[in-house]
Amino acid sequence: MSAAITPEEAARHSAKMAKIKAARDRMMATKTGEKGLIIVHTGPGKGKSSSGFGMIMRCIGHDMPCAVVQFIKGTWDTGERRILTRHFADLCQFHMMGEGFTWETQDRERDLAAAAAGWAKARDLIRDDRNRMVLLDEINIAFRLGLLDPIEVLEFLAEEKPAMTHVVLTGRNAPDALIEAADLVTEMGAVKHPFRDGVKAQPGVEF
Amino acid sequence: MSAAITPEEAARHSAKMAKIKAARDRMMATKTGEKGLIIVHTGPGKGKSSSGFGMIMRCIGHDMPCAVVQFIKGTWDTGERRILTRHFADLCQFHMMGEGFTWETQDRERDLAAAAAGWAKARDLIRDDRNRMVLLDEINIAFRLGLLDPIEVLEFLAEEKPAMTHVVLTGRNAPDALIEAADLVTEMGAVKHPFRDGVKAQPGVEF
Repeated sequence: MSAAITPEEAARHSAKMAKIKAARDRMMATKTGEKGLIIVHTGPGKGKSSSGFGMIMRCIGHDMPCAVVQFIKGTWDTGERRILTRHFADLCQFHMMGEGFTWETQDRERDLAAAAAGWAKARDLIRDDRNRMVLLDEINIAFRLGLLDPIEVLEFLAEEKPAMTHVVLTGRNAPDALIEAADLVTEMGAVKHPFRDGVKAQPGVEF
Repeated sequence: MSAAITPEEAARHSAKMAKIKAARDRMMATKTGEKGLIIVHTGPGKGKSSSGFGMIMRCIGHDMPCAVVQFIKGTWDTGERRILTRHFADLCQFHMMGEGFTWETQDRERDLAAAAAGWAKARDLIRDDRNRMVLLDEINIAFRLGLLDPIEVLEFLAEEKPAMTHVVLTGRNAPDALIEAADLVTEMGAVKHPFRDGVKAQPGVEF
């Protein structure tokens, strides 16, 4: 890394980078649109919720009002819950609507009621066009468990989502119809996961 | 979704979930380890930096001191920069060491110097065992561009990283040796990206 660069090499690098910059500037000049995106984070890997949460914090950094509805994982004392409710309750509404994983509740009626209440809250937050981003965390799990109907959610987004509002939907096994309708879809692939080696969920990393 | 559940169905559901919970509790009881992880977010999809940043915010939510070194994208007025420097400077050190993309600087010597300064800062932050997580954002790009040597970084982590410190390395094209050495690796796959449709980078979503 420390090998000195000759003036000729420096000049060649500079000329090459100037060409790349010109090409890139031309390409980026075509990207002028702004729109409220439907964003999906799915797949078995880590990072679906944390990256949704990272975007929420970016919004707060830009003073953009936003909101989070957490489906499913309802009872954890998470870092995201603490930081949003303690520091940013004015900019970001935070609602935990799940009652925990289905194998914790063991009560289908309660799961259905919690999911329905979460989706009712989500509709209100999305309709309110002051909110620039609404994160529906783990909603894909609610779809997967049959607690919510993805088609009903997609119809609502198509008809009622304000044009500039971003809606982020996370959770593995996103329904095909959602992937089809979304603007931005990332599949988180698990290359390696430390749970396999007996390491437990740790604060900061998983919650 | 609104079909009523019979008492028999509710009982069957409850019994099935109780079995799942018992199996899961047994499995999770084997996950008792705690360790400082080497975490890698790579791949072409969105969410590598935002999920690293989401974990940093989780740490802050748990009052865990942490730090961020941003390589490469040095000159942007990002949401993460604003929120960390405005609100959490006491818990999270934030250092922007890049000077922008290489095609912006067009100066290889300057890029090398910025990467070296970033890595020197990162070493200090990792050695300081008060920091529970250190995010090295876009460091994989510095590897890819030959600005830093991944082997040198891995040797440092093996020898000097405190046992309980998490180090997160982001950026596409993570070197094989890093993936080999890491505890937790996620590959972000781009299923759909709105840049393709002429939508530009938007605040809250990309920065």
